[in-house]
Amino acid sequence: MAEYKLIYFNFRARAEIVRWIFKQGDIPFTDERINREDWPEKKNTIPGGKLPVLIVKEYTLPQSLAIARFAAKKAKLVPENDLEAAFIDALADTIYEIMTEFYKIRMSEKTEEEKKKAQKEEFLPKFVLPVMEKLEKRLTGREWYVSDNLTWGDLALGVFFSDLKLFDLDNLAKYPALKAHYEKVTSLPRIKEWLETRPKTEA
Amino acid sequence: MAEYKLIYFNFRARAEIVRWIFKQGDIPFTDERINREDWPEKKNTIPGGKLPVLIVKEYTLPQSLAIARFAAKKAKLVPENDLEAAFIDALADTIYEIMTEFYKIRMSEKTEEEKKKAQKEEFLPKFVLPVMEKLEKRLTGREWYVSDNLTWGDLALGVFFSDLKLFDLDNLAKYPALKAHYEKVTSLPRIKEWLETRPKTEA
Repeated sequence: MAEYKLIYFNFRARAEIVRWIFKQGDIPFTDERINREDWPEKKNTIPGGKLPVLIVKEYTLPQSLAIARFAAKKAKLVPENDLEAAFIDALADTIYEIMTEFYKIRMSEKTEEEKKKAQKEEFLPKFVLPVMEKLEKRLTGREWYVSDNLTWGDLALGVFFSDLKLFDLDNLAKYPALKAHYEKVTSLPRIKEWLETRPKTEA
Repeated sequence: MAEYKLIYFNFRARAEIVRWIFKQGDIPFTDERINREDWPEKKNTIPGGKLPVLIVKEYTLPQSLAIARFAAKKAKLVPENDLEAAFIDALADTIYEIMTEFYKIRMSEKTEEEKKKAQKEEFLPKFVLPVMEKLEKRLTGREWYVSDNLTWGDLALGVFFSDLKLFDLDNLAKYPALKAHYEKVTSLPRIKEWLETRPKTEA
């Protein structure tokens, strides 16, 4: 039995970063995916009633970024330097906020066509492009997001941009440093293997 | 010159937790508060264009919780145990989410009377009371939120409930363990002194 059990829906969304971290750290974990139909019944068995959670021994840890940061410590993907660690935390919070804006559009009552329009004309220029500009500057002439080592900040960027690609928001071509970074992250052997073998998700 | 400069509006909101942590850790910091009228001009000088930020040497760290966690490490208010640290992270994220719901009401177009009604009839029962029930259970028979030592999780709870009191949402009387914890946190000599001497804020 793996020491850790991640429970989530069959989505990437709020849990995929945790899966990447465990994979990159070569840490075995149970990747339990609940069917949405079973959720109303299952909900009462989850303290706090929200997913994802990570089961560690008798404890149930909620909140995707708290889980990701914990997993990253176990995977040795958190830098020793406090300020470097803090810049990764800030990046993760910023990505979380951007994705929240994205989910607002996806879960709205708009038609699919209206959603695509809102993604392209509101979400992308307002929330994504300014961050991409900053990332392009930061990653130019740098090996990884902070310091000279791979951290969970790099994986967070990889997950973020692989999701954006799926939503037809692939503007990476205009950002060469960002594109090179994305290709480097998704070419890490364990991440590459995960991308080739991971289960198909609903979202 | 203090090593750290916190820049925010003259609000408690997203920065008060950082101030409590620095105070409790007896770490000097510059507590710069920008007038809202000056913000449009000042905005361009802040990388990312959002407050709060923490200035550390030549770096500008954004995101209130990334700042708080960094300050907590400097103040020795983060437990050594990774899982305990993660439970504090999860608590901080949950409080952040709850406060986001609160600000949605405050910044809506409703009248003050409608806002008070929404706070009491929607926000409180839906977002706050379920968390208070869980906290009451957790804090019963326990000295602090995790482990036997004060952490930034305890300060986060103290800030949260001191703000809720100001919004006429004081239901602590029904939660004796939570009330005792709140009184213990706000009686810490350095926190008590801060509460007695802190500048009046706009929000």
